[in-house]
Amino acid sequence: MGEDKRIPVGIIGASGYGGIQLVRLLLEHPLVEITYMGGSGSVGQNFSDLYPHLAHCVNLPIESCEPEEVAARAKVVFLSLPNGLAAKIAPKLLAKGCKVLDLSADYRFKDLQVYDAWYKEGEPRTDREVNQSAVYGLPELYRDRIATANLVGCAGCYPTASLLALLPLLKQGLIDHSTIIIDAKSGTSGGGRQPKTNLLLAEASNSLGAYGIASHRHTPEIEQVCSDIAGQEVMVQFTPHLIPMVRGILSTVYAKMRDPGLTKDDLLTIYKSFYRNSQWVKVLPKNVYPQTKWACGTNLCYLGVEVDQRTGRVIVVSAIDNLMKGQASQALQCLNIMMGWEETLGLPQLTFYP
Amino acid sequence: MGEDKRIPVGIIGASGYGGIQLVRLLLEHPLVEITYMGGSGSVGQNFSDLYPHLAHCVNLPIESCEPEEVAARAKVVFLSLPNGLAAKIAPKLLAKGCKVLDLSADYRFKDLQVYDAWYKEGEPRTDREVNQSAVYGLPELYRDRIATANLVGCAGCYPTASLLALLPLLKQGLIDHSTIIIDAKSGTSGGGRQPKTNLLLAEASNSLGAYGIASHRHTPEIEQVCSDIAGQEVMVQFTPHLIPMVRGILSTVYAKMRDPGLTKDDLLTIYKSFYRNSQWVKVLPKNVYPQTKWACGTNLCYLGVEVDQRTGRVIVVSAIDNLMKGQASQALQCLNIMMGWEETLGLPQLTFYP
Amino acid sequence: MGEDKRIPVGIIGASGYGGIQLVRLLLEHPLVEITYMGGSGSVGQNFSDLYPHLAHCVNLPIESCEPEEVAARAKVVFLSLPNGLAAKIAPKLLAKGCKVLDLSADYRFKDLQVYDAWYKEGEPRTDREVNQSAVYGLPELYRDRIATANLVGCAGCYPTASLLALLPLLKQGLIDHSTIIIDAKSGTSGGGRQPKTNLLLAEASNSLGAYGIASHRHTPEIEQVCSDIAGQEVMVQFTPHLIPMVRGILSTVYAKMRDPGLTKDDLLTIYKSFYRNSQWVKVLPKNVYPQTKWACGTNLCYLGVEVDQRTGRVIVVSAIDNLMKGQASQALQCLNIMMGWEETLGLPQLTFYP
Amino acid sequence: MGEDKRIPVGIIGASGYGGIQLVRLLLEHPLVEITYMGGSGSVGQNFSDLYPHLAHCVNLPIESCEPEEVAARAKVVFLSLPNGLAAKIAPKLLAKGCKVLDLSADYRFKDLQVYDAWYKEGEPRTDREVNQSAVYGLPELYRDRIATANLVGCAGCYPTASLLALLPLLKQGLIDHSTIIIDAKSGTSGGGRQPKTNLLLAEASNSLGAYGIASHRHTPEIEQVCSDIAGQEVMVQFTPHLIPMVRGILSTVYAKMRDPGLTKDDLLTIYKSFYRNSQWVKVLPKNVYPQTKWACGTNLCYLGVEVDQRTGRVIVVSAIDNLMKGQASQALQCLNIMMGWEETLGLPQLTFYP
Repeated sequence: MGEDKRIPVGIIGASGYGGIQLVRLLLEHPLVEITYMGGSGSVGQNFSDLYPHLAHCVNLPIESCEPEEVAARAKVVFLSLPNGLAAKIAPKLLAKGCKVLDLSADYRFKDLQVYDAWYKEGEPRTDREVNQSAVYGLPELYRDRIATANLVGCAGCYPTASLLALLPLLKQGLIDHSTIIIDAKSGTSGGGRQPKTNLLLAEASNSLGAYGIASHRHTPEIEQVCSDIAGQEVMVQFTPHLIPMVRGILSTVYAKMRDPGLTKDDLLTIYKSFYRNSQWVKVLPKNVYPQTKWACGTNLCYLGVEVDQRTGRVIVVSAIDNLMKGQASQALQCLNIMMGWEETLGLPQLTFYP
Repeated sequence: MGEDKRIPVGIIGASGYGGIQLVRLLLEHPLVEITYMGGSGSVGQNFSDLYPHLAHCVNLPIESCEPEEVAARAKVVFLSLPNGLAAKIAPKLLAKGCKVLDLSADYRFKDLQVYDAWYKEGEPRTDREVNQSAVYGLPELYRDRIATANLVGCAGCYPTASLLALLPLLKQGLIDHSTIIIDAKSGTSGGGRQPKTNLLLAEASNSLGAYGIASHRHTPEIEQVCSDIAGQEVMVQFTPHLIPMVRGILSTVYAKMRDPGLTKDDLLTIYKSFYRNSQWVKVLPKNVYPQTKWACGTNLCYLGVEVDQRTGRVIVVSAIDNLMKGQASQALQCLNIMMGWEETLGLPQLTFYP
Repeated sequence: MGEDKRIPVGIIGASGYGGIQLVRLLLEHPLVEITYMGGSGSVGQNFSDLYPHLAHCVNLPIESCEPEEVAARAKVVFLSLPNGLAAKIAPKLLAKGCKVLDLSADYRFKDLQVYDAWYKEGEPRTDREVNQSAVYGLPELYRDRIATANLVGCAGCYPTASLLALLPLLKQGLIDHSTIIIDAKSGTSGGGRQPKTNLLLAEASNSLGAYGIASHRHTPEIEQVCSDIAGQEVMVQFTPHLIPMVRGILSTVYAKMRDPGLTKDDLLTIYKSFYRNSQWVKVLPKNVYPQTKWACGTNLCYLGVEVDQRTGRVIVVSAIDNLMKGQASQALQCLNIMMGWEETLGLPQLTFYP
Repeated sequence: MGEDKRIPVGIIGASGYGGIQLVRLLLEHPLVEITYMGGSGSVGQNFSDLYPHLAHCVNLPIESCEPEEVAARAKVVFLSLPNGLAAKIAPKLLAKGCKVLDLSADYRFKDLQVYDAWYKEGEPRTDREVNQSAVYGLPELYRDRIATANLVGCAGCYPTASLLALLPLLKQGLIDHSTIIIDAKSGTSGGGRQPKTNLLLAEASNSLGAYGIASHRHTPEIEQVCSDIAGQEVMVQFTPHLIPMVRGILSTVYAKMRDPGLTKDDLLTIYKSFYRNSQWVKVLPKNVYPQTKWACGTNLCYLGVEVDQRTGRVIVVSAIDNLMKGQASQALQCLNIMMGWEETLGLPQLTFYP
């Protein structure tokens, strides 16, 4: 296929960690071409001024973001911006015929009242209609809807890890909803590239802490999807922790089984069956639990399933790369589906170990 | 006080991480003197061959362990050995009049059947009587019994962090016992100094995983103490994780409150009251959660208390240094109590930050 | 190209870090197929027992190493073994018509007396003729010889980083040979997967030290190549350091310039010219120095060039991934050349950052 | 001694990493009492708002810095401020009779022209007379002058590590001055607590790079002291590197020996003799090289001495804690000397390992 057949793609917010993952992935994707990079603080610089190690592969300026200009040069636009900004840009891009994949929280909520309750900082949202058209970007669950969407609100990093661990249990009605606890752990790249004291190596290294207990914004996002699958309102206990590593999320999910007679073998069978068509989710053999490092740099989610017969609980551990399956490569997976391409196109599945 | 008044102390298993913490602490303790160091693989070497940075402070050989010889030279003996070995040495030392503090699991269980079920690798234990005399070395709970003990089975690292988080809830009957979940995270020094592949920097660094799900040996230890306090059998869900850092344990403890009307302020009051005489436990102000780094190199345990009114759960986060409050400095705290000394003597309370 | 056209490749020593890099790379190389994996301690296990995260890509047993059997199933064999073992296997494989790429030090030295002086542990080498046929596997220097070789002794990790920094200076006669100092820093994966105390996360993390000062075995390897290029015997000062990170080598190379009037611009021109046909070496723009992370997971070497006009010295900093350009991907680069394939085939050039 | 006899001490710049080390150390020093804490951005907060883990030990507000007010409440003032600020405050404090220890570069240079050439950002310095009275705060070299000083410009972190490695060689005239190379490596805490992108864990972790090649500001500071000792102008090659760890500096120092016949034993004898009265410098046994971790949290400097008979060079490796011997504890050592106290008072000499 000639290069002229590649789809022109724009990235708004290219200078952050989500942006550079997208750049990295799109450069190796055979059917797209990056034609526009937008930013704010770094406008006027070349992308390789920010990331000199990519100078041999990328030679594009960071431009200010004029939606009309973007739409003229790109058929697909990834938005990798702080929460609240995509809602201002996406409607304009969609109106010009672009497909839009948003990596922020702006288009993840069916109910904007929930969004406003957990995210609103300024004025209320005025894009309710556009929001209604958005599809939640978790392909393992909403593959069909994504295929016909023009706007995808890509799933958050913690929700991706947590939901992939929970979905088979909820779908099959195997657990008592009131007992779901998600103890999640993330590397510090989840906090972005804007410098903050608590993310300094000197502070975050060699230490560990919880944050956002009982109040983290990913809670309602997880609950929305759980409720959708369970067919009734589900509330979860979600606690994130900051881990002294760059990439990776591990979610340890606990729930009481409705039928305490279920065995580990039963559950492994159920999980493998649920994900039999989802090649990016790997259910590990019995007694093997995932390391986040295994998923590093890939679009994979590894699941380890355990049953505690003493307590009647199922414990599922999921591992992803927060910047990949938790962000950029999952967005690209969504794009593959939206474009009718092979779902695995351009998505890495082999990490470098160790 | 003249140096001649110092109590002679022996350490068996001085070359491991527990041992070197003890050496470090005892060197600065004003009322003791290290007179004997025992080991196995490193017998014949000087301690400073193993740890050259301490050559200016310690000049003692690692000797083979002859209980009679040890008892002749030490009035107090710390055992820092793999599980199963203390049970063979402690009875002899006690018979010679030594006070013994064991850092392994050998003397933590009232019921040796539980010990055998979770720990036995070779022949059954033959020291039942001695075991009955042992006191569980968690001073915040058993201070009085420790004061009169000759044999202390020092609390494990995960149990220390987890129990200090749970005790006030159990003591006051505030939680539904069937809902207790302990999601614990430890630095890799907990795995000891014997080289293992999974503890290599190349493997453990920049990654995160769970292990021992539904099967870790610290589970029955935690349950024994919880049951003792609650006055009924308590079962807990305990999941440890390996964190890419050297020292520190963070335990995130979840439970449903019996009275969902309890507020964060109520619980903070209860915690502060419970620990009002325990200067090594610091209950943090509202909305502050601990970092493991804060406890690093100290005998402190920091507690953060949170309530989720949506779910009716209390979430308590505890942070300790696994090698200190989780091992060596807690043993020294026990010794202070056994000897009738000031409980804080020689125990560090100020970390170096960051 | 049909899969039946792929060249069958064997890896002996597949279970170590060199081995798993090769597996990872060969899986994505379009013209090869792994048909044999040999090991010692892990014989009988499946490769995915050792590395469960690769189970979806590799399903091969680790077999014991019978050269005849290997040669029957592979046309190309990579040897990733401790020093001294390749010399026993390679001659047999070559006699059977295999091409052999050795990742150990066995075939790096023209003069086996030098090898014996620095490496010999047992009996003397008996493969002098085979050794004479070996080519040193540093493609940027010996591309032509590699093209016709059947046996390549792949360059060591420190030598690769150090030589790529030094070559243009030596080739052009720009420096006083007696002033060369190489201060090198490596991640701990260079120490291999066999567990050793000093490589534990608990020991190596959050610390830094030098080792092998004035005695490291890579010294004569660097000197052999330097002398070859300079046309006279060159002696270097080489000091390696262990860095608390998994992958990466940074070499900081110092030398006095013969002509103190040379400027940074002059040198950058010289470096860019020297490497104009070597797409794996990236000379960075003025005032930019490499981070090892930039090279992580790639076959790239980044070079930063600086001149100190006050002291008359040139300082060159090189960064590579020790397991890639310093080991496995460089071996694959050599194979591409040996087979007459595109030199870049199957070699990654984009890291995941951060 | 009653608490009323303690000397009142103030810290200006208490909120940064230098400040918190001082707070930590002064809290355990038996003859001082912190009576004033000054800051800028954090004025109005309590110190324990910034560092909650110290709430049980410190209960002082961060106040704005009025020199008159400070002088009224403190007899000794530590300045831990960005370069350029101490020069504005110190003269006023001295005029009021305070003793001043400055941790910045402001009072390290005899020749303010050198200071201006390397540091000046705004207007020229107007405190030349005061500057003349300052003593360079490296006690191992200038103990006598410090004893009578009212103003100490505490030695920088890299200079401390580098000079302690070099001093015996320079003092004895053992090396060719034109061959001195200092390849230094520092943890990221040296970059301070102000958040910067390159110091984020996500950026600095798992990577390594050089910076300030041929241009770092510590170069003239090292050269000033070397020249003073050598009795002639000495120029050094100094290259710092950023290491993925929190604390610690390792300096690897190279120089050609004037007499190539000198052996390692000779040099060890010379080093031990030179530092026989300096209990904070530990010359390691033959063939032992320091780990930075050994010095962590202490005022110690460890030295490893090596000779390369092949090249005629001496290689000395020094390890310190950059925030302690490289900053805060060294300042306290200076204070002990200034006050006529035991030089070791309140200075930690035992790290926690690992």
